[in-house]
Amino acid sequence: MSWRVRIDLEYDGTDYSGWQIQPGVPTVQGALEAALGVVFGKAIRIWGAGRTDAGVHAIGQVAHAILPDARHAPLRLRHSLNALTPESLVVQRITPVAATFDARRSALWRHYRYRLATSPLACERQYVWCVSGTLSRPLLARCAEALPGSHHFSSFCVARSAGKGTLCTIFDAGWRRRGREWHFDIRADRFVHGMVRALVGCMVAVGTGRMTMENFLSLLERPDRRRCAPPAPAHGLTLVKVAYTEGE
Amino acid sequence: MSWRVRIDLEYDGTDYSGWQIQPGVPTVQGALEAALGVVFGKAIRIWGAGRTDAGVHAIGQVAHAILPDARHAPLRLRHSLNALTPESLVVQRITPVAATFDARRSALWRHYRYRLATSPLACERQYVWCVSGTLSRPLLARCAEALPGSHHFSSFCVARSAGKGTLCTIFDAGWRRRGREWHFDIRADRFVHGMVRALVGCMVAVGTGRMTMENFLSLLERPDRRRCAPPAPAHGLTLVKVAYTEGE
Repeated sequence: MSWRVRIDLEYDGTDYSGWQIQPGVPTVQGALEAALGVVFGKAIRIWGAGRTDAGVHAIGQVAHAILPDARHAPLRLRHSLNALTPESLVVQRITPVAATFDARRSALWRHYRYRLATSPLACERQYVWCVSGTLSRPLLARCAEALPGSHHFSSFCVARSAGKGTLCTIFDAGWRRRGREWHFDIRADRFVHGMVRALVGCMVAVGTGRMTMENFLSLLERPDRRRCAPPAPAHGLTLVKVAYTEGE
Repeated sequence: MSWRVRIDLEYDGTDYSGWQIQPGVPTVQGALEAALGVVFGKAIRIWGAGRTDAGVHAIGQVAHAILPDARHAPLRLRHSLNALTPESLVVQRITPVAATFDARRSALWRHYRYRLATSPLACERQYVWCVSGTLSRPLLARCAEALPGSHHFSSFCVARSAGKGTLCTIFDAGWRRRGREWHFDIRADRFVHGMVRALVGCMVAVGTGRMTMENFLSLLERPDRRRCAPPAPAHGLTLVKVAYTEGE
């Protein structure tokens, strides 16, 4: 009797070469599948909602898996997995779900946060991009205001996206000050590969005067990857939440 | 012509065996004095406001030093030092001060923060103590309310304190929820060695039902180190700010 579970997990991306399993390097999928393999004595595959890049963190990643038997109560399974995974990966919840639940396909939206600071930090520097220069608050705000709605994000995609192409619908996006940091929050139905980092890289270029607002806006309308600023580094990015319909 | 400077600095305590210089181990004082030694070509001594223990972080530590010449503008000196220190130590500001300024003796108060969570975390786990169990918000609040005022903190001192003894004046102390964390903030004229960690260890024991409120309160009135709960670990503690009179 197999059963399907939703796995809510958190990881510090510093130690991982991204989500997707690859031979010879530590990956989030690899670490969690290895722990599941120990618990169940056989290979268990997991599917993640967002395949985060090397160095990207997650506090609200979601995956699903089909487990071979129901002998393990969810809470006990969670404790077993947390005892087997490194400290940098924590299973927060395991929930039995309907056979129709698919961590990636059932997701309604994803929320990413990018943290940056304009002076060097020692504490929490693993999670914050420290840029030099002064950021213009109104320019950052104007960039973010241009994002909601449906656009082709080809300019902000590091590689040709398979499947649905580059069309994404942004529900909301905005910058705010949090103490000595700037946080950029963005919520969308989907993201193309490298999109948040590419957007942040360009917005910071606008905010520091290295790119004009007109150039930024034109990247949204007439895709041209070559006119993009360098992407923001991975370590400032965190997958905050993946949302599903009620009851999932 | 020598000049006296105030040095505001931040460090991630993870990599250091505390503030105070010791042979053969990395210390904050050691790292900063080494960088100053390179810049000035001779040994420079610094004095810190709070000698934080191994593993304790600081975002608002203050030190003073007497520099041999005024050839280095403060901003340039700061950049030089930051280029020489590890990423885990950042000089935030260098300010010329009067000859009467003493980072430790001139301080009016220090503010420490202790961060904890009641479920395991992967992100920012270097800065947060993850305890198991449920914390009672009213009990934590009652503990904190008992702290303001002047008390002998002998129960909460890991070793006999030199000089002024164990009398400290707490200006304010309180617990609050910040997202998935609990923050304990405390501001006092001075702290005896290990005091915040000992206090947090006991308050968490009260908040989880392992110590009675009466026992906690009696520790403040009739010192007895042996009845204390184990101290909270160092990595949850951060020195947030050291305050001086206006103009210093």
